[in-house]
Amino acid sequence: MSQPLTRPKVRDAEATKARLLQAGTEEFAAHGIAGARIDRIEAAANANRALIYSYFGSKDQLFDAVMDANVARVLDEVPFKPEDLPGYAGRLFDFLVANPHLLRLATWHRLERADTGHEPQGLRASVRMKTESIARAQAGRRLTSGFTPEDVYAFTMALASAWMEASPYAPAALSEDQLDARRSAVVEAVRRLTTPTKEETS
Amino acid sequence: MSQPLTRPKVRDAEATKARLLQAGTEEFAAHGIAGARIDRIEAAANANRALIYSYFGSKDQLFDAVMDANVARVLDEVPFKPEDLPGYAGRLFDFLVANPHLLRLATWHRLERADTGHEPQGLRASVRMKTESIARAQAGRRLTSGFTPEDVYAFTMALASAWMEASPYAPAALSEDQLDARRSAVVEAVRRLTTPTKEETS
Repeated sequence: MSQPLTRPKVRDAEATKARLLQAGTEEFAAHGIAGARIDRIEAAANANRALIYSYFGSKDQLFDAVMDANVARVLDEVPFKPEDLPGYAGRLFDFLVANPHLLRLATWHRLERADTGHEPQGLRASVRMKTESIARAQAGRRLTSGFTPEDVYAFTMALASAWMEASPYAPAALSEDQLDARRSAVVEAVRRLTTPTKEETS
Repeated sequence: MSQPLTRPKVRDAEATKARLLQAGTEEFAAHGIAGARIDRIEAAANANRALIYSYFGSKDQLFDAVMDANVARVLDEVPFKPEDLPGYAGRLFDFLVANPHLLRLATWHRLERADTGHEPQGLRASVRMKTESIARAQAGRRLTSGFTPEDVYAFTMALASAWMEASPYAPAALSEDQLDARRSAVVEAVRRLTTPTKEETS
């Protein structure tokens, strides 16, 4: 007899957590950790603040959970292909345009949370996997060896987000044509940077 | 008789403003606007908080004055040469390593202040001057025409700060050799990106 009683509760708890993560994403992206207000998250999620502390522990930890959820999404939705870094940069550009919250959250994390040693879940392992696959592509001469794998990765990320870093909420104000032109420039920049030079292929 | 009486006062006021700007640079770089505390700035500058409001107007306006002073320094100390963008990127890299506060201030500005429409003094004019000189270098075939002048500028800035953006306070932890290697990679990346292609020079 216990199942019909507990299942809805579990479902309620999961739904409330999801609403808190969503409201937290918006509040933290806009205001950061110091600037975020628990009462706004509470109101937006239609959930009592006691649940925030009971589910996540603290404001900082709610931020960490929000970061983890958003990092998991980008890792999941933007597949990495070392043999096609220009294409990867283009897809990452698209994701950042469609999800302007992500870069702001990552930036707040860097400014307010990185010196605590906290790292978004799965990020370090994902970066290691990526630089290792870049190294293999370099060994196979499918990528330039003019840079370390870490440089290739850092530069690809920097170019894909160059325009958004300048003003994270601006892309929404651009026409489709302007966005297309910026995307093409990013793809071409990563192509020039990562294509093996003539000396490397001869 | 009035000069000997007023001169020291003027000098005092200037010295106090300079101390407030210095203390503000450190406090805002570490904590941002929402996180900054006026009492810490007051203590670090050894100046009464009433002077902050009398000289600058508000906490936001002290932040703006801090940004203006720091932007003026980088514009002054890192000369821009469109015919040598790799060298410019290298010098900017050096400046950012030597002045880790700058990128953090600029990032806080983007997150907390950009949507108010405030722009650091002189920055827009400086960027326009730079993209115009890039356009002239492109017309003279000294730079690739594969990107718009705005793209060339945005990508050069993104590559010069790629490593610092990843973790603004990290460079201090690197050995001199590691820093040198990163600097060389930045210079080479901008070289590959901006050198006219074979088709453009033939």
